[in-house]
Amino acid sequence: MTQRVRVQNFTVSRDGIGAGEDQSLEQPFGHVNPGELMAWALETASVPARAEPGGTRGLEDYFTRDFAHGIGAEIMGRHKFGHQRGPWPDDGWIGWWGEEPPFHTPVFVLTHHPHPDLTLGETTFHFLDASPQEALARAKDAADGKDVRIGGGVTTLREFLEADLVDEMHVAIAPLEYETGLRLWENPEELTDRFHLEQITAASGATHCFFWRR
Amino acid sequence: MTQRVRVQNFTVSRDGIGAGEDQSLEQPFGHVNPGELMAWALETASVPARAEPGGTRGLEDYFTRDFAHGIGAEIMGRHKFGHQRGPWPDDGWIGWWGEEPPFHTPVFVLTHHPHPDLTLGETTFHFLDASPQEALARAKDAADGKDVRIGGGVTTLREFLEADLVDEMHVAIAPLEYETGLRLWENPEELTDRFHLEQITAASGATHCFFWRR
Repeated sequence: MTQRVRVQNFTVSRDGIGAGEDQSLEQPFGHVNPGELMAWALETASVPARAEPGGTRGLEDYFTRDFAHGIGAEIMGRHKFGHQRGPWPDDGWIGWWGEEPPFHTPVFVLTHHPHPDLTLGETTFHFLDASPQEALARAKDAADGKDVRIGGGVTTLREFLEADLVDEMHVAIAPLEYETGLRLWENPEELTDRFHLEQITAASGATHCFFWRR
Repeated sequence: MTQRVRVQNFTVSRDGIGAGEDQSLEQPFGHVNPGELMAWALETASVPARAEPGGTRGLEDYFTRDFAHGIGAEIMGRHKFGHQRGPWPDDGWIGWWGEEPPFHTPVFVLTHHPHPDLTLGETTFHFLDASPQEALARAKDAADGKDVRIGGGVTTLREFLEADLVDEMHVAIAPLEYETGLRLWENPEELTDRFHLEQITAASGATHCFFWRR
């Protein structure tokens, strides 16, 4: 089996915005409300964030239940780990994902500033000053033959798309507009030179875009 | 985790027909052409029947790639195993699934006629003269905490639905009509007294119905 590089459940608004630029400890997505943006996923039974039993088991549950299947490592930008900029403060903060992060694999966090490895539950974060190509080589090696997830945020995903390193991508378009913020695209058709694109609108109102290489 | 009883990728025509009544060795689905009925699944990258690389990785690939996830046993009717009726002939025939069946779990085959266990690849077929309730108890026990798939055919699935033993069900409706054959339902709304129902039509032309308990 070839190792694939996949994007899963990445969500943007109708105008392509995945997060605000004004990120802070209190607001990981800045002015964007993640509960609103990710509403389609949070309703499902299999979303990792679900604390209570219940949730839907319709179409969109297939996307959240696929999250861990066949994935051996994740790559994320520094701002998906935490709000800090510049050299890491020695403040003991363990990032947004808490004591039991939902990844359960090695996670490579892209940062220009050195930081020791951090193991929380079944997830080990490795902090890497590397190009997308270098980071991907490390992640593939760590993934034990399984696929690598590009976890975002917007800036990181754009870099991997620009370097043409993504094989397969599921992006949900939430029925919202934000006007300002970090923008993934003007529209999904931008990528159809390289990818097949299938789009479908679910009962939640979100439109799901599936990309795979031509 | 509760063990669930699930139906996956079961496909019927617009008029509810999943197979012909005139099953034979040469025609496992009788007058129904399975390549036509299952076209939506056969196009996908993850369908177990795929011999060659390639295939689509859009929406419908999520359904075929979910086939093995979390499933610890299957229950099927005798006619999903083979075409024979009555006492089993001692002819060495190993059923339609060949030397490497796609199940990779214990499979319980419902039949009134005794037959020794049969192990092929990673799949062991157990032949059982039992009610749906009894068969399900056996399958749950064998599933090692995982879910049980009700694999069909139509008659077996109807029996499990009538006994109210199904928790979750994905049925695809192919854009075809057969008029005669083994009929699952008049229409999917028949089941909405017990199940939530979400329906969506994919690019292939198939309409996917998702049922989960109210």
